[in-house]
Amino acid sequence: VIRRLDEIVTAAKRSELCVMAVAVAQDDDVLTAVAAAAKEGIIRPILVGCKEKILEIASQINIDVSAFEIVDEPDKEKACMAAAGLVRDKKASLMMKGFVDTSYVMKAVLNKENNLKQSGMITHVAGMEVPGFDRLFYVTVSAMTIAPTLENKVAIINNAVRIGHVLGNECPKVAALCAVEKVNEKMPCTLDAKTLTEMNRRGEITGCVVSGPLAMDNAVSPAAAKHKGIDDPVAGNADVLLVPDIEAGNILNKSMEYFANAKKASVMVGARGPIVLTSRASSAESKTYSIALGALIASSERGRA
Amino acid sequence: VIRRLDEIVTAAKRSELCVMAVAVAQDDDVLTAVAAAAKEGIIRPILVGCKEKILEIASQINIDVSAFEIVDEPDKEKACMAAAGLVRDKKASLMMKGFVDTSYVMKAVLNKENNLKQSGMITHVAGMEVPGFDRLFYVTVSAMTIAPTLENKVAIINNAVRIGHVLGNECPKVAALCAVEKVNEKMPCTLDAKTLTEMNRRGEITGCVVSGPLAMDNAVSPAAAKHKGIDDPVAGNADVLLVPDIEAGNILNKSMEYFANAKKASVMVGARGPIVLTSRASSAESKTYSIALGALIASSERGRA
Repeated sequence: VIRRLDEIVTAAKRSELCVMAVAVAQDDDVLTAVAAAAKEGIIRPILVGCKEKILEIASQINIDVSAFEIVDEPDKEKACMAAAGLVRDKKASLMMKGFVDTSYVMKAVLNKENNLKQSGMITHVAGMEVPGFDRLFYVTVSAMTIAPTLENKVAIINNAVRIGHVLGNECPKVAALCAVEKVNEKMPCTLDAKTLTEMNRRGEITGCVVSGPLAMDNAVSPAAAKHKGIDDPVAGNADVLLVPDIEAGNILNKSMEYFANAKKASVMVGARGPIVLTSRASSAESKTYSIALGALIASSERGRA
Repeated sequence: VIRRLDEIVTAAKRSELCVMAVAVAQDDDVLTAVAAAAKEGIIRPILVGCKEKILEIASQINIDVSAFEIVDEPDKEKACMAAAGLVRDKKASLMMKGFVDTSYVMKAVLNKENNLKQSGMITHVAGMEVPGFDRLFYVTVSAMTIAPTLENKVAIINNAVRIGHVLGNECPKVAALCAVEKVNEKMPCTLDAKTLTEMNRRGEITGCVVSGPLAMDNAVSPAAAKHKGIDDPVAGNADVLLVPDIEAGNILNKSMEYFANAKKASVMVGARGPIVLTSRASSAESKTYSIALGALIASSERGRA
């Protein structure tokens, strides 16, 4: 089982080299991260974007892109479509969002011609390494809806669980997080949490153990769970933290990063080919982790195909 | 300005001794915390509850309650009413929740006869000390509604700001947290955040600077705010973290405690007399902080009355 983000990098280096299509690559930050990951043998990039700007920026920041394939497409929307097309045509097995709004990337992925959409839903998973904990946490939300429905939550869980499996966790423990650990009709997410737990017990959500409603403390602290008298297979030992909505997800992720100094690897999954997301504010280390996580997932997809 | 929770204890010891009515005191955990705070000179308790059980538990855990006034009321609901009555009659200036559901305490506080309800709203404020930060964060939510309205949020801010003032922060910086820093009609909390900011600029919310929508990283990290190009008086320097709903609030609080090892002082304010909340799972230190924060707020109310 992979318990630290640097182990993801090691594993990605060991697996077969994946090709990553970078959508709108003309950005110093993106090119730096891509070149570093390529140098480490994590991926082989295809840079999609304005070739002139790519070469200009690369030269300014002293990055050698001469070995990289470049697809010249100055228009950002078309560049996203072209990057998605590379995945469709199996010329690339993952994508990375470059200097472009996430919405353009999503549009290209969801485009019918590109045919990358799968049965479930595209969701966002952040693999978080928190100092003092012996395992990774997977914080997960929908990448498409602000307030996911029960059905959406099933897809969100499935995607996060699959990443757990890729990282060697055979049966991830999923906590459906709420503000309380008791079902309360006035708090709709507690009803969803209960239903998700029941669906898991009935074999409708597989490959994991789901429990909820759980409050955050009961989910991650064995002592807090014991204090509350909660006897549950997930309580205190959760791997996957399913949050009720995008606000809670963003606040939790950022709180882990900025208050707890957690390290993060961040991907969108659910389409054919994972999509690597990095933000300018994230560290070089975190960008490498995200690319490596995307590459590992892509390798496993290729293995299954 | 008080920047650490132990400074609250020091300040509470220095101010005039407050009387604290403990609602349903028959609990080892509660009695331990109350006796410790009394010994430190933070408060003088009146124990309301089943006298027989209080004496029995105190003797079992070797705590001397002989110097404490006890109001014998075995019924939990009536004990809460009696404790609130002590505040109404100015025999106590703050309350502490003992071995009883918060809902009973709230019911007693909101009861018309007790007349403790003030114009605003009863809200929950957690003063959080996060390692590596030079100031306290005030995480705040409604104690009465799951999804606060705009009007509720004004009251929530006002209560948190008053606590900031009590602790010497003359103009707390309030971040209205959302998942993003741009107004998005599909995310109602971003609209509220914008309105709250405008109300503050127009002088309808005073004694503080409000900004929003802000994402968590932009709120607490000057580097993240700079990366995003956000030029704002609160960005990166927020004191008060206003969350959109109870789920985000609980998840944030618990994440700070369990992932970031934050220390916490927790009170409900907005009624006449603050209400100290401690949970069994919280440390002895945290319980003392909460009682001291309640006492300091009570002292300041007495000063104003």
